[in-house]
Amino acid sequence: MQTPWEYRYAHRTQKMGSSVIRELLKLTEQPDIISFAGGLPAPEVFPLKEFQQACNVVLQNDGAQALQYSTTEGYRPLREMIARHTVRHSVQITADNILITSGSQQALDFIGRLFINRGDYIVVESPTYLGALQAWNAYGAQYISVRADEHGMVVDELEAALRVGPKFIYILPNFQNPSGSTLSLERRKKLVELADKYGVPIVEDDPYGQLRYEGEHIPTVMMLDSQFRDEQDGEYTGDGVYTGNVIYLSTFSKLLAPGLRLAWVIAPPEVIKKLVMAKQAADLHTSSFNQYVAYEVARGGFLDEHVKLIRATYKERRDVMLEMMDEMFPSEVRWTHPLGGMFLWGILPEGVDTADVLKIAIERKVAFVPGGAFHPNGGGKNTMRLNFSYSSPDTIREGITRLGTTLKEVLHKNGRPTWSYDR
Amino acid sequence: MQTPWEYRYAHRTQKMGSSVIRELLKLTEQPDIISFAGGLPAPEVFPLKEFQQACNVVLQNDGAQALQYSTTEGYRPLREMIARHTVRHSVQITADNILITSGSQQALDFIGRLFINRGDYIVVESPTYLGALQAWNAYGAQYISVRADEHGMVVDELEAALRVGPKFIYILPNFQNPSGSTLSLERRKKLVELADKYGVPIVEDDPYGQLRYEGEHIPTVMMLDSQFRDEQDGEYTGDGVYTGNVIYLSTFSKLLAPGLRLAWVIAPPEVIKKLVMAKQAADLHTSSFNQYVAYEVARGGFLDEHVKLIRATYKERRDVMLEMMDEMFPSEVRWTHPLGGMFLWGILPEGVDTADVLKIAIERKVAFVPGGAFHPNGGGKNTMRLNFSYSSPDTIREGITRLGTTLKEVLHKNGRPTWSYDR
Repeated sequence: MQTPWEYRYAHRTQKMGSSVIRELLKLTEQPDIISFAGGLPAPEVFPLKEFQQACNVVLQNDGAQALQYSTTEGYRPLREMIARHTVRHSVQITADNILITSGSQQALDFIGRLFINRGDYIVVESPTYLGALQAWNAYGAQYISVRADEHGMVVDELEAALRVGPKFIYILPNFQNPSGSTLSLERRKKLVELADKYGVPIVEDDPYGQLRYEGEHIPTVMMLDSQFRDEQDGEYTGDGVYTGNVIYLSTFSKLLAPGLRLAWVIAPPEVIKKLVMAKQAADLHTSSFNQYVAYEVARGGFLDEHVKLIRATYKERRDVMLEMMDEMFPSEVRWTHPLGGMFLWGILPEGVDTADVLKIAIERKVAFVPGGAFHPNGGGKNTMRLNFSYSSPDTIREGITRLGTTLKEVLHKNGRPTWSYDR
Repeated sequence: MQTPWEYRYAHRTQKMGSSVIRELLKLTEQPDIISFAGGLPAPEVFPLKEFQQACNVVLQNDGAQALQYSTTEGYRPLREMIARHTVRHSVQITADNILITSGSQQALDFIGRLFINRGDYIVVESPTYLGALQAWNAYGAQYISVRADEHGMVVDELEAALRVGPKFIYILPNFQNPSGSTLSLERRKKLVELADKYGVPIVEDDPYGQLRYEGEHIPTVMMLDSQFRDEQDGEYTGDGVYTGNVIYLSTFSKLLAPGLRLAWVIAPPEVIKKLVMAKQAADLHTSSFNQYVAYEVARGGFLDEHVKLIRATYKERRDVMLEMMDEMFPSEVRWTHPLGGMFLWGILPEGVDTADVLKIAIERKVAFVPGGAFHPNGGGKNTMRLNFSYSSPDTIREGITRLGTTLKEVLHKNGRPTWSYDR
């Protein structure tokens, strides 16, 4: 049906693309497909009983406020709780440094709205988070990709990118989506130093920071920036004052439940003020009810306990996936050993296109995300993202078996490795 | 504190303004001020018990899905329920014509994102809804204001505006925010006819449609457009097929609770597809939990019953406000008699600036919104918006008494009317 809207789209609408991941999520609805394509938390770890109790408490004690319009900044007790947690583990901030957003995706969108003029350069890792690319494509961003390996962004290659004059650097330091890699302490320090040298600020996206399954916690880039400034000032006081160079994003989606759409931004107060204006125009405020409920669930230290269950559950699933890959995958395939998070990254021989592999995999009733989409400037066609948080260990065993069969079929056509001969 | 973000704002950020209404809302936090400035529903009509029951049912039966990521389009049973309701009362649509948004504000933002290029003209009533202006200012919209009176947009003056070549017409036909006026049936028909003549589509924003306290329901512009097309086709079948010329917005904020942030858009399927892409980039999806809970509360005809309570409550408050204004306001002040909704519109003599009046009113511990901000191209400085839904009848009596005193003070300085002599 032709409507008068047809010829009235704005120029930015032409560039909208549907997310590969979102489209693939539709596959997960077919019950016979084992999908490692999504990025879903395990529903088994949702604290249903605590939610139910919290809903009852909130509606009994604060029903009228929880269901009413509220301030754009977010529910103050929730912001104060996040501030306290941040002060304890990272830098000195207050609730005035915090805006509650409807998921981190909204924070990414607002950062685009506030900072990206058409044609502006943003430094990203390659591969990087697809949702950020989607958000910023709408504002006409261009990307400078810096190569990443199993220790995150190869910071030695960052300086050339900074000399181009980018608006900011976007980095996911912990158990990155999609690659599962973690930026080493040394590289974080170097990143902070280079960012300071060129005066380029940083957006640190940290949805998985608390989901570490082995090794020691590495300080946030936000915290290292504070220490660096302290050292520069000549007198190291170690008081961890927030410098404002790093805008930090995190979320309740992985700690509580993504269905609430609750995340937060830490930024300098003057940036928070602008973010608040953007949010007023975009959706007035995030659901007050969900903010009350999340606060009620989380207060009193529940999250610190609950995250242990999440870690144990996901660690087991990661380990099962790694073991099965060892057993089932052909020797030409390599993969990352993520120290936390929800994703593994598979690397096939150069010349193999995982988008082609996916088509066969779906026939074998297993799915993943081809890695190409995560590389804003091309490349990575031979890579794939596998999620290990959502499926049960038994499902992972079966799924990786199917995927191993698929990969052998693709790589060893006619019983011998074909990829290196035929292409 | 100076941060490297300071010099990095995008051009659109310079034009962001904080909403007058949102800033004024902060006044309502002072307990001794009676505020008619907000646009809040009465918390007394929130169905707390039903919410509590719904939360329990949802978490018991569908907890894992309700707390998980979900599709961008929205929870299908909720969309199907809205479609059924629309088919019964307006036009033939299906769930594929519906996107769930995080409040109507988000729908307005997405419409701007999809359709507004910098400099595009949008036809609006003057006064019009401030939230729409806020949303579309971010995309560089310009406005053609068409005068409105107590029967809504003066449609006789619309044709000149349409000849400028606007992107679309934005109209709030029922109990408009801010003026409380309702577009007459005759004017609606003329609007549809003129829009068709010039091929300009319509955005119909209808948050209050069900909150009518007197008179007969008037068909939506969306429905009249369908009838008009039917008549044009020569054979009037009266089947009410949705033409796609009108994008229609409505919300659960006034029927259930604004704290849920749940609204919907009705649009042609191809526009819905683009809206879905915009939403993917903006916040992935609206809280699945809230969609499940709203569906659970609303299903089985609860809303049809519940809206009667809301109507009775607001009608009483409107009547008390009108009576008190009759009694307390000086004779130079005129006001609308809204047939529904949440707002009254006061008109002071030309030359009086209600922004000045507000300053005095706040000293007298009463607040309203000065009307100037609702006029995108200036004018209306002598007008004011009063909300009657939020305050109890007794509070309304006291507040209007205070406001009457303030107005007499302003208009009758030295015991005689001053506005017509001194200015």
